[in-house]
Amino acid sequence: MLRIAVIKGDARMERLAQLLRGNGIDAGVFTEPESAASFGEVIVLPLKGVEPERFHGILDNGQLLISGQDFLQREDFSVLNAIPTVEGALQIAMEQTPRTIHGSRCCVIGHGRIGRLLAEKLAALGATVCVCARKPADFAWLRVRGYTSLHSHHLAGKLGDQDILFNTVPHIILPHARLAELKKSSLLIDLASAPGGVDFKAAEKLGLQALRALSLPGKVAPESAAQYLYDTLMVILREKDVIL
Amino acid sequence: MLRIAVIKGDARMERLAQLLRGNGIDAGVFTEPESAASFGEVIVLPLKGVEPERFHGILDNGQLLISGQDFLQREDFSVLNAIPTVEGALQIAMEQTPRTIHGSRCCVIGHGRIGRLLAEKLAALGATVCVCARKPADFAWLRVRGYTSLHSHHLAGKLGDQDILFNTVPHIILPHARLAELKKSSLLIDLASAPGGVDFKAAEKLGLQALRALSLPGKVAPESAAQYLYDTLMVILREKDVIL
Amino acid sequence: MLRIAVIKGDARMERLAQLLRGNGIDAGVFTEPESAASFGEVIVLPLKGVEPERFHGILDNGQLLISGQDFLQREDFSVLNAIPTVEGALQIAMEQTPRTIHGSRCCVIGHGRIGRLLAEKLAALGATVCVCARKPADFAWLRVRGYTSLHSHHLAGKLGDQDILFNTVPHIILPHARLAELKKSSLLIDLASAPGGVDFKAAEKLGLQALRALSLPGKVAPESAAQYLYDTLMVILREKDVIL
Amino acid sequence: MLRIAVIKGDARMERLAQLLRGNGIDAGVFTEPESAASFGEVIVLPLKGVEPERFHGILDNGQLLISGQDFLQREDFSVLNAIPTVEGALQIAMEQTPRTIHGSRCCVIGHGRIGRLLAEKLAALGATVCVCARKPADFAWLRVRGYTSLHSHHLAGKLGDQDILFNTVPHIILPHARLAELKKSSLLIDLASAPGGVDFKAAEKLGLQALRALSLPGKVAPESAAQYLYDTLMVILREKDVIL
Repeated sequence: MLRIAVIKGDARMERLAQLLRGNGIDAGVFTEPESAASFGEVIVLPLKGVEPERFHGILDNGQLLISGQDFLQREDFSVLNAIPTVEGALQIAMEQTPRTIHGSRCCVIGHGRIGRLLAEKLAALGATVCVCARKPADFAWLRVRGYTSLHSHHLAGKLGDQDILFNTVPHIILPHARLAELKKSSLLIDLASAPGGVDFKAAEKLGLQALRALSLPGKVAPESAAQYLYDTLMVILREKDVIL
Repeated sequence: MLRIAVIKGDARMERLAQLLRGNGIDAGVFTEPESAASFGEVIVLPLKGVEPERFHGILDNGQLLISGQDFLQREDFSVLNAIPTVEGALQIAMEQTPRTIHGSRCCVIGHGRIGRLLAEKLAALGATVCVCARKPADFAWLRVRGYTSLHSHHLAGKLGDQDILFNTVPHIILPHARLAELKKSSLLIDLASAPGGVDFKAAEKLGLQALRALSLPGKVAPESAAQYLYDTLMVILREKDVIL
Repeated sequence: MLRIAVIKGDARMERLAQLLRGNGIDAGVFTEPESAASFGEVIVLPLKGVEPERFHGILDNGQLLISGQDFLQREDFSVLNAIPTVEGALQIAMEQTPRTIHGSRCCVIGHGRIGRLLAEKLAALGATVCVCARKPADFAWLRVRGYTSLHSHHLAGKLGDQDILFNTVPHIILPHARLAELKKSSLLIDLASAPGGVDFKAAEKLGLQALRALSLPGKVAPESAAQYLYDTLMVILREKDVIL
Repeated sequence: MLRIAVIKGDARMERLAQLLRGNGIDAGVFTEPESAASFGEVIVLPLKGVEPERFHGILDNGQLLISGQDFLQREDFSVLNAIPTVEGALQIAMEQTPRTIHGSRCCVIGHGRIGRLLAEKLAALGATVCVCARKPADFAWLRVRGYTSLHSHHLAGKLGDQDILFNTVPHIILPHARLAELKKSSLLIDLASAPGGVDFKAAEKLGLQALRALSLPGKVAPESAAQYLYDTLMVILREKDVIL
């Protein structure tokens, strides 16, 4: 029976160990590298907060260390993680506005995995969706989907009628000048990792409601997020011939 | 200029008066029937809590009283109100479960306005949807939409794999015997007016998470709900030839 | 073993008999009332073309005659039949225009079963959808769905930018005056039973492309249509306690 | 006024010239390279059938030649062209089967632009969709979308219940062994460029209905396809600073 040592992190890691045990793998949750190393043929680190360097010199050749980066750099894991990120963003929008998403003008900045899925779900809930993108192929896809689009480099004067703005771009795309053009009742939800895309100081001065929403999967849907960890771990172990 | 007296109720009524004023109607919010009657050609009561009888003998023939029932009995208003009810139900489901709606097994009990719209939105968010209905035509529609269906009279033994159950039927459809068959991790959201469809005492004894979710439009989206009041009021006033 | 005599009609009736035999029922296809009556405990007529009167005096009390009207008057059967009707309408639109449905302006006249489903599918294929309706509740639903709407009584001057018009209303709603306002490149597809909603003589004079599209289920998808006959027959037989 | 010489090809090129003229550009359709060269500052070749080499030595430095490859290699143009390709595939499926797409089991082989869009539209029409893919990220997207998936390398024994198979992979993925496993009533539509993915000889021997469907945009929707040519041409001319 395969033995996997899961290193303690947020709630997802406990749940990951449960899922492993429920699928016939001997799994435990550990805080100390040494005890993890003495237990597991495979050691799985949480997505953030534990450096792989802590295991240098502790593992032998036959042991496999899977770090948070091993997950985060995988396209398949990032795609799955877009699901709870997008649901979390919808939940925040529902909680923080006195209006329904249905009938709202929603602007999604960025057309990566999260931007694409978010635009789809907003449209499915009845929002009027506008997506900001840069590449010609992105604009072609936006036309296929029937969304309005804006070029990220030409946002000046274009965002004044938006009710909710979701940013997914990890650099300042909404500086003071853009924020000053927004409706006072608009809501900003920044999903991008630091520094994010919103000048929060400017937003505060302007009296705009602006929220940073990071690490949503572990917060809004830890069980689903743990399932994605489990499923991706199985793919990794198959790719490395640890399991069939 | 038409003068409309709006009787104080929840936040929607203040907002309704704002919308009226923003559209060229002289509107005020009143608490006393007498002052409302001395101001308005039309008097609009809140959906609940103020009886039309309080205006007996106060109004003259030319004055029009529009009660909460005048709104609630209209099919068009009920359809519009289904939007915030459904979004509110989705928000509660997102908040109260550690899983995404995507990938969850969701059971919608009842196939009226709210049941239909809720099933659509759950499916759009990626849930596996099962709807409980009774009439042959309902089952035909459910087949058209591609949902699984159950007959409301034959639920015994059928609900054990559902993650979230939404009830819209206003009589006990989930008594102790049905509740005892549910997964312990399942969530019950009862959207039906009292007495609702869930035996809440039994649910509590069984350790099930069960929530009553009533009057969602005014709670989760008062501005949208006020807009529906406004739009429906305009239709009523046109039907009664008060406005063109 | 239950014996069902199926009376010959279009291709659906042969297929219905096959489906019955495939489900453990002794079924045959007959042209003569007498031979059908001597075979079947149940006699099923085609949807059109055979009058139940032909069986007067031939059947005994224990025999059950199910006419086309018995199917056509059922809401459940009509809902199912909307599926091939709508797909047939989409197919005709695809075949008869040099443009994709995606990006076309499509107008659906009437908001019954077929109008509703057709509007949904056109929107899903990327058309810009406008629905003509009459009742306030219909307009509320159209707003829920996010379609543009028009009042059927006020179409004058409103249809000039439509690319494809689908009519489902069984009386003239597009007389010469309305047709004269259409683009020359527009396509008219009349799905309503005679006399239909389009003044075809006027359309011809105006050089407009106008098509009558009747009885689509039996033409575009006879196997699916037979399956709906079969499924509805089973419901009828259960309702009449002929089968469990 | 900019002068553009459009070289004669299929119906799209005539239409392209019309669109150019309708947008304030002096455009003509030419068959001879010399006359095109003496007219246009820009020369646009059809997507296929005219080699750019024919213009060697004819053009001076200021003249811009845009070949079919210039369009076909662009991601944005290919995305737009997926729309009529997919609608054409749906049309063929509707025409060639006695069943509705609704309720059919449809298998899409390949998860590129066309496969993705086709799967979406089939699902929107009510088909049960299965997609064959290879990459882990593709399987993650298929899970996000809620489709069943198969690995292209492991199709043996898996396709026996499919009603319609759409291939988008340009090498033989359905050899005799796979075809022999299909239902006799199944329909094969090969959308991939030569040699395609279906062993057509084997399909014929097995009595399977198999169709090659190539160059659909120009066939099923030449006006839309010409519009995409026009829109992409404008992007190219802007990128090359020929227009603003």
